[in-house]
Amino acid sequence: MALEIERKFLVPDGESVPDGREFEVRQGYLVLGPDGAEARVRDQDGACSLTVKRGAGLVRGEWETPLAAEQFEALWPATEHARVAKTRRVVPLGRHEAVVDTFHGRLAGLRTVEVEFADREDAAAFTPPPWFGPEVTDRADLKNQHLATAAGPPRP
Amino acid sequence: MALEIERKFLVPDGESVPDGREFEVRQGYLVLGPDGAEARVRDQDGACSLTVKRGAGLVRGEWETPLAAEQFEALWPATEHARVAKTRRVVPLGRHEAVVDTFHGRLAGLRTVEVEFADREDAAAFTPPPWFGPEVTDRADLKNQHLATAAGPPRP
Repeated sequence: MALEIERKFLVPDGESVPDGREFEVRQGYLVLGPDGAEARVRDQDGACSLTVKRGAGLVRGEWETPLAAEQFEALWPATEHARVAKTRRVVPLGRHEAVVDTFHGRLAGLRTVEVEFADREDAAAFTPPPWFGPEVTDRADLKNQHLATAAGPPRP
Repeated sequence: MALEIERKFLVPDGESVPDGREFEVRQGYLVLGPDGAEARVRDQDGACSLTVKRGAGLVRGEWETPLAAEQFEALWPATEHARVAKTRRVVPLGRHEAVVDTFHGRLAGLRTVEVEFADREDAAAFTPPPWFGPEVTDRADLKNQHLATAAGPPRP
């Protein structure tokens, strides 16, 4: 099990984001648990994976395995009720990386940025660059698994 | 998606079960949803799989893919909170099969038998053989995902 320590921010409308590697991502939730647990499949430019997360907030347990394309295709139909499509850009940020998600489809207009940290101290010491908007780490309506079933983008 | 139409019965204590192929099964739940949804991994004599189910009662949606051993091992630790071990015996029963599960560990003493049907009419027309006990198709405390987190065997 890996522990995931992340902070999430909005990227304001019209703000320009530095260059970085870009990927097209589609992900869908197989099952959403009442306690924030989730089992999710993802296709990132053809690299498919299955991830299980448990726990909520800053620190979550995470287990992952790669999937072959045919395994992904067998499971994808089970996610019809809870899907998200986005362009992901990974921007170097000193010794961290900013992962910027620009959402598509019914969530068009929403941009978020996440930074992953080695530990809680590292997370607390982080100073967001000027192009980051308000922090939304604890906002339930901006969690990926909530977005997957939302009718439209949450209010800023 | 496959639809699963099953009836489940208890096998009474001391009742002898006809011969059949036997498998050792361990299965664990990655995520349990509030609506009966589940994502589960299973190792049946070394044949590993991932299954997603949604819906409750007689008819459920089901999606499945085989897993390689290393994929299973990456996900198995995520099921620590919800596991079941059982010996499964498959007994021919006319044009159906009776799947008898003898549970181990903290569920020792529990035996159930399930029969899968082609459709609702087929399910309704089924006459259980004399070694079947009471029907428990709709008993929540005998569903596999409930058993996986139960402290002991449910009362008969």
